[in-house]
Amino acid sequence: MDCGNLYQINKASIMPTDNGDVLSGIKSNENGFAGFGEAYFSLVNPGAIKAWKLHKDMTSNLLVPKGVVKFVLFKENEGKMRFIDEVILSRAHYFRLTIEPGVWFGFKNISSDEAIILNIANIKHDPAESERKPPSAIEYDWEIEN
Amino acid sequence: MDCGNLYQINKASIMPTDNGDVLSGIKSNENGFAGFGEAYFSLVNPGAIKAWKLHKDMTSNLLVPKGVVKFVLFKENEGKMRFIDEVILSRAHYFRLTIEPGVWFGFKNISSDEAIILNIANIKHDPAESERKPPSAIEYDWEIEN
Repeated sequence: MDCGNLYQINKASIMPTDNGDVLSGIKSNENGFAGFGEAYFSLVNPGAIKAWKLHKDMTSNLLVPKGVVKFVLFKENEGKMRFIDEVILSRAHYFRLTIEPGVWFGFKNISSDEAIILNIANIKHDPAESERKPPSAIEYDWEIEN
Repeated sequence: MDCGNLYQINKASIMPTDNGDVLSGIKSNENGFAGFGEAYFSLVNPGAIKAWKLHKDMTSNLLVPKGVVKFVLFKENEGKMRFIDEVILSRAHYFRLTIEPGVWFGFKNISSDEAIILNIANIKHDPAESERKPPSAIEYDWEIEN
């Protein structure tokens, strides 16, 4: 399956400074940027799973400045859920994950501390543009360790 | 001194959910938004001070999803530094601080954990548009507890 228009992963930088690092997020001219509608944080309790969600219009640009989060992506094709990828983000693996509209995704905090996800979204929050399914609706073993 | 065009403080929301709260950041139609150039994180070690900086063109929108950070603002008028305000941001006091261009500011992590600041800036990082002074250049007692 061609996943080029479903998601992308771009390296983000961590610049050490004496009093605390500076972690890049996204610039308006960088890969994956699709305009600015809203920025918000999603906190994830240790071991907790937030799944599943699909956005019809929102492009999400996701960064994890704290904790370790596993993102899991699926695409619904002809009524079947097809696994796309799983991506682990943390400071040790500091990337920006861009998820395009039309992708089912969920995530789990796989660290023992609270995790923080920043989403830079191209549109403002609008419940009408997203769909939800309960965690059990898509077959995936969240317990697998990568 | 009229400070209306120097900074503003707007309440931001924390929405509890079962697996971790959602913390608002900024929407493109909200007070203080001045366009999107870049988003980045500034981490601040416990007790550390990052000061002083003035942006000639950047409007900063600052949020603190972790830790407790005291921001201190000064304005240079006729060669003299005039104190504007100090603002403490944390989850317990969850606001968005907008700092307009032309303001000298610094900040200190007054918590015992690492603090995380998100800046949603209207322009991309450009060393040519900012000025710096060492902490001692502006008289301010960082040890005062509020």
